[in-house]
Amino acid sequence: MSRIVLASRNHHKVEELREILSDACARLGAEIVGLDEFPEAPDVVEDGITFVENAILKATSAARATGLPALADDSGLTVQILGGCPGIFSARWSGGGGDRANLELLLAQLGDVRDEHRAAAFVCAAALVLPDGRSAVEIGSLPGAVARAARGDRGFGYDPIFVPAGQDDGHERTLAEYRAEEKNGVSHRFLAFRGLAPHLKELLTT
Amino acid sequence: MSRIVLASRNHHKVEELREILSDACARLGAEIVGLDEFPEAPDVVEDGITFVENAILKATSAARATGLPALADDSGLTVQILGGCPGIFSARWSGGGGDRANLELLLAQLGDVRDEHRAAAFVCAAALVLPDGRSAVEIGSLPGAVARAARGDRGFGYDPIFVPAGQDDGHERTLAEYRAEEKNGVSHRFLAFRGLAPHLKELLTT
Repeated sequence: MSRIVLASRNHHKVEELREILSDACARLGAEIVGLDEFPEAPDVVEDGITFVENAILKATSAARATGLPALADDSGLTVQILGGCPGIFSARWSGGGGDRANLELLLAQLGDVRDEHRAAAFVCAAALVLPDGRSAVEIGSLPGAVARAARGDRGFGYDPIFVPAGQDDGHERTLAEYRAEEKNGVSHRFLAFRGLAPHLKELLTT
Repeated sequence: MSRIVLASRNHHKVEELREILSDACARLGAEIVGLDEFPEAPDVVEDGITFVENAILKATSAARATGLPALADDSGLTVQILGGCPGIFSARWSGGGGDRANLELLLAQLGDVRDEHRAAAFVCAAALVLPDGRSAVEIGSLPGAVARAARGDRGFGYDPIFVPAGQDDGHERTLAEYRAEEKNGVSHRFLAFRGLAPHLKELLTT
């Protein structure tokens, strides 16, 4: 069975990606492994200025270090009135304080911002890079708005303050109030990697 | 002598504006006073989504409360890779921690950002609103870049981490290392209010 490496040492992300790409991998006879199986692979400085650039940086580094086809993603929350921030800075928005500090800072910054100006989207760029340099990128996004307070205890990152658009049941649930299987069917990461599946098939079989 | 009110209770700002508009005021026989002379004037919720909108909000409120021609400005630091942030959120970027906390948060957010992507500008929108509703707005900007560390003890706000562009003496001084008279000749506030001077003359004499 051939292997595809995900440029992440996060087991949760590896598991999630195995689910998202289970059909594609079954057809290809391929298995997704995490970068933790390659302790010698170097850490990447993510100094790109877009999600796409960072995803390609990570996948390229992993493909070089492992000699395997490599997948990577870069994602974050883009808030319209903040010109797309936190964006590529989502994970370090508070300067290193972690998920809760990031989220609380964002709520404080948007304290005076009226509801009609709180539009936002979760965005993910997913990249596939082969050791021979061929590559593909897809973007997935989940539109919504920034809530006025954190709600819900599922998910991670900005999930507790992000209200996905188009909830027609009258509720305004945050993503941290979604069930896991519900979230996985609409998430920006799901959409981006699902978009990569056809590229995976094409690039790995030619 | 007629009076023009500046929508600010900050004595330093009132003094600075008197200097910037001294010629225009002398010609008009007008004097600039601060909003602190009108304790009954209400505080304004600055919930506009642009510098211009906030400047007009403040000037309009002051003109209504005092019956005088009113000047106001809204200004901030716009960083290109942050999509224009902190922008209108400059004063509350850290969520209420004050100048030093704002500046240190911005440095931390930009920690991995290479020099060629640290472009920024100080921007000021200055508004004049008359009690009869006539108005004018001008924008001033000072281009430059965000430094890697704070330097200098003059100025305020983000001055210690902002390096104005076009310094041809080989030094890379921050705005907090500029002498006051040097800064006043190039600053975004100076340029915006100087741009308003002709409107002041036209609107107050017709």
